Amino acid sequence: MRNMISQTPTPPYYAVIFTSIRTEGDNGYAEMADRMVELARQQEGFLGVESARNEVGITVSYWRDLESIRRWKENSEHSFAREKGRKEWYQSFKVRIAKVESDYGFVI
Amino acid sequence: MRNMISQTPTPPYYAVIFTSIRTEGDNGYAEMADRMVELARQQEGFLGVESARNEVGITVSYWRDLESIRRWKENSEHSFAREKGRKEWYQSFKVRIAKVESDYGFVI
Repeated sequence: MRNMISQTPTPPYYAVIFTSIRTEGDNGYAEMADRMVELARQQEGFLGVESARNEVGITVSYWRDLESIRRWKENSEHSFAREKGRKEWYQSFKVRIAKVESDYGFVI
Repeated sequence: MRNMISQTPTPPYYAVIFTSIRTEGDNGYAEMADRMVELARQQEGFLGVESARNEVGITVSYWRDLESIRRWKENSEHSFAREKGRKEWYQSFKVRIAKVESDYGFVI
């Protein structure tokens, strides 16, 4: 997976900011995380994803609208992964759904 | 610096999502990054910050409103650091300003 700065369109669009602290050990996490990114990319309205982890992991996915986010949340494979996350992979997590109103920067 | 999941208030509030790719070498970056977090914490309207870096670095800071974000952007020490960032520290970066509309999760 290439992990770069997402080339998102002109705002407005939506960001899902997922911040987490992992439990010890992999327990199938890395494979599932890769699979979820692969699957997210196939969803209608998906605009990009950025991810990094040290003590805290942050994954920001970008979406065209709230409807796209809702559909992704209801995806059955994603729902199964979220359930595993709550039970096994995350000590703590927080999901924030936010409307991107403006952006700037330089991306090569 | 303790790097945890921020205990933000009930939405709405704002998130500044800063995604970057660094240039080679430290060149004073780490010290300045710590200083900027320290300084941000002192600003009125600051609600929290989360940060992680691998290939891509992601720092999400949370703010009460757009006015708090504007004042922080105009802070002179922060402006100086941003200028250094553009010239020396970042190969690419993107800043997205987003209104957090909802959140969920469990944070210990």
